[in-house]
Amino acid sequence: MNINSESIVHDLTQIRQKKPLIHNVTNYVTMEWVANGLLSLGASPVMAHAPEEVADIVKISGALVMNIGTLSAPWVSSMKLALQAAKDYGVPVVLDPVGAGATPYRTQVARDLLSQGGVSVVRGNPSEICALAGGSPTTRGVETSLLPSEACASASKLHQEFGCVVVASGPDDLILGPERAMRVYNGTAMMARVTGMGCLVSAVIAAFCAVQKDPTLAAAHAMAYCGIVGERAAVNIQGPGSYAVTYVDLLSELKEDWISKLLTVESHVSLS
Amino acid sequence: MNINSESIVHDLTQIRQKKPLIHNVTNYVTMEWVANGLLSLGASPVMAHAPEEVADIVKISGALVMNIGTLSAPWVSSMKLALQAAKDYGVPVVLDPVGAGATPYRTQVARDLLSQGGVSVVRGNPSEICALAGGSPTTRGVETSLLPSEACASASKLHQEFGCVVVASGPDDLILGPERAMRVYNGTAMMARVTGMGCLVSAVIAAFCAVQKDPTLAAAHAMAYCGIVGERAAVNIQGPGSYAVTYVDLLSELKEDWISKLLTVESHVSLS
Amino acid sequence: MNINSESIVHDLTQIRQKKPLIHNVTNYVTMEWVANGLLSLGASPVMAHAPEEVADIVKISGALVMNIGTLSAPWVSSMKLALQAAKDYGVPVVLDPVGAGATPYRTQVARDLLSQGGVSVVRGNPSEICALAGGSPTTRGVETSLLPSEACASASKLHQEFGCVVVASGPDDLILGPERAMRVYNGTAMMARVTGMGCLVSAVIAAFCAVQKDPTLAAAHAMAYCGIVGERAAVNIQGPGSYAVTYVDLLSELKEDWISKLLTVESHVSLS
Repeated sequence: MNINSESIVHDLTQIRQKKPLIHNVTNYVTMEWVANGLLSLGASPVMAHAPEEVADIVKISGALVMNIGTLSAPWVSSMKLALQAAKDYGVPVVLDPVGAGATPYRTQVARDLLSQGGVSVVRGNPSEICALAGGSPTTRGVETSLLPSEACASASKLHQEFGCVVVASGPDDLILGPERAMRVYNGTAMMARVTGMGCLVSAVIAAFCAVQKDPTLAAAHAMAYCGIVGERAAVNIQGPGSYAVTYVDLLSELKEDWISKLLTVESHVSLS
Repeated sequence: MNINSESIVHDLTQIRQKKPLIHNVTNYVTMEWVANGLLSLGASPVMAHAPEEVADIVKISGALVMNIGTLSAPWVSSMKLALQAAKDYGVPVVLDPVGAGATPYRTQVARDLLSQGGVSVVRGNPSEICALAGGSPTTRGVETSLLPSEACASASKLHQEFGCVVVASGPDDLILGPERAMRVYNGTAMMARVTGMGCLVSAVIAAFCAVQKDPTLAAAHAMAYCGIVGERAAVNIQGPGSYAVTYVDLLSELKEDWISKLLTVESHVSLS
Repeated sequence: MNINSESIVHDLTQIRQKKPLIHNVTNYVTMEWVANGLLSLGASPVMAHAPEEVADIVKISGALVMNIGTLSAPWVSSMKLALQAAKDYGVPVVLDPVGAGATPYRTQVARDLLSQGGVSVVRGNPSEICALAGGSPTTRGVETSLLPSEACASASKLHQEFGCVVVASGPDDLILGPERAMRVYNGTAMMARVTGMGCLVSAVIAAFCAVQKDPTLAAAHAMAYCGIVGERAAVNIQGPGSYAVTYVDLLSELKEDWISKLLTVESHVSLS
């Protein structure tokens, strides 16, 4: 199935009607931002990490997000419990390997989670994707100067090793699923000026996964929609503070005409 | 005593003059939002949870808020220490049982805190109130589709069992205290589009409790004021992002004419 | 070397070109705000606290910030590990002793960190500085009514005891370094209406320390720039919510003419 404005609007409408519970075991820095973004999108965010309850929350959720932005041992244990529950109950899972490559601990934790199985989509910047695939540890915190096109080989390797959809996001986004790859060109440089934009995008992928059974298509829809909102929000820029506010405002609108006008994707990309 | 615009303005003025310290042992998601809301209101927020210091903070505080939004065992221990200190020093306490009913763990922790004694006001959505009172566990995360009027019996049961004021908030708010019940009709649907609006309202109840000895009246004042600010903030809606910013802006203003114009309450509600 | 608009602009330009990684072991409340502020300034924020990785992050960072706003024993351990790594690798360190004096625990932890050595700059409000220097514990949470001028003796004592630059900030800011003291008069009362403004200022000092070897000058540059941005942001005030958004917006601009027009400092203050 191709990605087009109708398929995006279909999934968005489903999110707004079903208001799927999105369970986030995530970092401290961007929890509120991600919760507000998901709520504005039409989903129902829950942040919970206690080992006593993560499985109970996963059971009633439409999708699970694991984000290692401020990881520590107790949180990693909770992620593993939540991931196990997601496998047991058939709940789709998105992994955001924030800072993989920056420290051996992060790289190892992210790979451990992938090895456990059950991750539907992993989304990172190209450096993080390369680090996860065993490439050189060039990540400098959460920044990257690599382009998604430079992460193609690593994305393929990760996909083959763990079977999940791999998204390398940046100026353009590479989405690599089983037997296909897509590229999304929407977005704008301003998005990188807001802390946690990547975290939010990963959570939006989870919201799309809650209503769209094909995780490759769900990921592409999310990347395209987030990019389109980002372009629209940049129309009258005052600075990164008001850009973030406007971004949340616009997530709540469903303007089909924006999507059909701005959508720029390749549904079938050859990686060879 | 009835609730009216003069009684609200009186308490608001006291908050702004005394700047009571409000101690929050609360969730990670909405800490900053709640701190900014309290600060804009005129109170002095403190967030602290270390067992080494919670009692010391309670001792110098005008009120304590306990919010179980992202609870875990160490934080629950700290809440119990803080609650004990509040009892010892006569500091009013507000409990926000976020997500009670969504998992057995949350319901149990919230009931344990209530059982310990010393809670002045518990504020939740109708699902949470019903779950705490032993009703069917219908809570779906922090959302609810029950109306406050459907939580009357549960609110009465909770009030009788634990002796605290019970607030079931929603499109309208039920405030149930000793020998009386009030209803507040202020507020707007937009408030539910912002993560942590309920958390902030609970913290505002605490701020009113710091200056108003009658916790029923303090809760009603807080619900009315938060609802009135919510209505005013909705006048020029761009979306949930800018609505949240405007909400914090308006909390800092004390416009007596808004309050007298918009206040819509019933000071004596019959629950039978 | 004197502080003037050219020296500030020089350092700002360096920050924007080098985008130094600023490692924050900080409080839960203001993490997102500080991250967005640093990002808007041009630096690269990282928040990380796991003992498994703090040293690895410090090693690749331009500066470290330790902020005890929501301290607890595990975080204090991580701060000590991070501080040791900063000493080992020669990374400048800023300590924000939030709430020192409010509880014995906070005062003790802040002094323990100072005693460990390696802190380049400590920035607090006058109450916190006095509490750290062993003065009367008058701090009431994170507020203060003392003026920086009333903290001169305490600042001198702290500087002599621990060898670090001491900043007492308030309506005006005292910056006390080796053999010199400066005073910055920029800023506005509105800054105190936003939660975490002090936390952000401390992080901005760290960003300046990452590009400016003289920590006294780095601290003065940061205090002046943050104050100037604060004055500019206050031009059209709607309230504290939109003020915070505008503050982040303006941090990203480098308007040399504002700086030269608004800068008000004394480069050589006599403390006797």
